[in-house]
Amino acid sequence: MLGRLLGCFLSKKIMSEHLLGHMSSFVAVREEDQAGILAFFRQKNLKKRDNHLEEGQICKYHYFIVKGCLRLFFINEKGVEQTTYFASESWWLTDYLAFQSQQTTPFYIQAVENTQVSAIDWHSQERLLAQYPYLERYFRLVYQRACGAAQLRIKYLYEFSPGRALLPFQHALSRVCATHSPVSDGLLSEIYPRIPERNQKEKTILNQFNFCKRTSVHLCCNQTKSHNG
Amino acid sequence: MLGRLLGCFLSKKIMSEHLLGHMSSFVAVREEDQAGILAFFRQKNLKKRDNHLEEGQICKYHYFIVKGCLRLFFINEKGVEQTTYFASESWWLTDYLAFQSQQTTPFYIQAVENTQVSAIDWHSQERLLAQYPYLERYFRLVYQRACGAAQLRIKYLYEFSPGRALLPFQHALSRVCATHSPVSDGLLSEIYPRIPERNQKEKTILNQFNFCKRTSVHLCCNQTKSHNG
Repeated sequence: MLGRLLGCFLSKKIMSEHLLGHMSSFVAVREEDQAGILAFFRQKNLKKRDNHLEEGQICKYHYFIVKGCLRLFFINEKGVEQTTYFASESWWLTDYLAFQSQQTTPFYIQAVENTQVSAIDWHSQERLLAQYPYLERYFRLVYQRACGAAQLRIKYLYEFSPGRALLPFQHALSRVCATHSPVSDGLLSEIYPRIPERNQKEKTILNQFNFCKRTSVHLCCNQTKSHNG
Repeated sequence: MLGRLLGCFLSKKIMSEHLLGHMSSFVAVREEDQAGILAFFRQKNLKKRDNHLEEGQICKYHYFIVKGCLRLFFINEKGVEQTTYFASESWWLTDYLAFQSQQTTPFYIQAVENTQVSAIDWHSQERLLAQYPYLERYFRLVYQRACGAAQLRIKYLYEFSPGRALLPFQHALSRVCATHSPVSDGLLSEIYPRIPERNQKEKTILNQFNFCKRTSVHLCCNQTKSHNG
C-alpha cells in the first residue's frame, strides 16, 4: 500500500523540471541559474485530504502544483466547507493577502488527491526575486492572468449560482468525480443542492458531473490550459 | 459650467506625480527614468457616466486612477447592468484577460464621476517593462495584492448576498451616494433589492447607504487604503 502510494509520486527531478518548464514558457531561464532557482523551493508530496493551511494559521507557502489538485475553501457560519477555488497542474495557489502580509488566513488549503507541489515560503520568494529579478516578470504574468481569471469568476458568481460558478474548474472537478468518490461525494453535495429548479441549463450541467461520478468517465478531459497556468 | 468642469480636473503634472509616487511606494524609481516612464502614459480626463470600454471592444487600456472612480460592470441576460468592481484613487483597472490577449471584452468600464487617469495601452506597457525591467516588481506587487483582494471578494460572494459582497468598496460607494445621486440611484437599486429579508445585518448596512444618500454624508469617509492601491 505504502509502495503504491510512493509509486504514484513523481521524482524530485521531474517535479523540478516541471516548474522550470513552466517558468521557461513565460521568461528565458538561464541554464546556469536553474540549480540556484530550485534551491529556493521545497518539493513536497501532499497526501489526499490533508490540510496544508488552516484558518487562523500564518500562510507560509506559495504552492506550484506539479501533479494533482488542491482546493481553497473556508468554513462558513453554519460550519459547512465552502470551496472557492481549485488549482490543478501548473497553477499556483496560496492565500495571497495572508502570504504577502505573513498574517493569519481565513482559508484552508487541502489536497483533493495525492498531490506533488513545489513550495516556496515568503522569505524565500523575496530572496529568489532579489537574486533573479527577471523572475519578477514570470510572477507578474502569472498574477496578471490570475487577476483576469478572478474577474471572470466574480462575473460568473453574479451571473449564475455558486455551483455553476465553479464550472471553470470542471476539468479539476471531473477528475475528482471520476477517481475519488469519497471526496467528490462531499464536493458534489456542496455544489449540487444549490442548483435552482428554474435553471434547467445549470441542472443539466451538474447532472453531467453526477453522471461522470457514477460512470468514472472524465468530463471535459480535453479541457485546455488552466486559468493561471 | 465648462470652466467648473475643467477646474475640477488636476493638472497633468500633478497626475504624473501621483503615478510616480505610487510606483515609488513599491520600488525605487530612479529620478533620471521618471520622464521616460511617464512618456508611456497618457493622462486622460474621463467624463462622468461615459463608458471607456464596452462589451465586444478590444480592451486597449490599463487605467491607473489618479482622482475619481471607475466601475467595471457587465450587462446580464435580462439587460441589467451588474457592477462587479469599483476602482478609486491609486487603484489600477482593466479587463486583465482581454487586455493581456488584446481581445474583445465582456465588460464595460465607466467613470462614476469625473475621473482622471494615467492610461497605458498594452504595447506601451510591454515596452515600458522592457525598458525599465525593475517596474516588473511594481506590477507584480500590485497584482499580488489584487489577487488576494479577489480571493476575499469571491469568499464574500459565497458567504453573503451580491449586495453585501460590494461592501469592500463602501468608501467608493459612499462617495457616489453622497455626491452623485443620479448615479447612485441606479447603483443602489442594483444592490438594494438583493438583500434578503432574513438577513437583518446586511439590511442594516445597506440602510446606511440609503441614509448616506439622503443626507449627503459620507459613509466611512476615513476608509483606509484600497485593495490594490
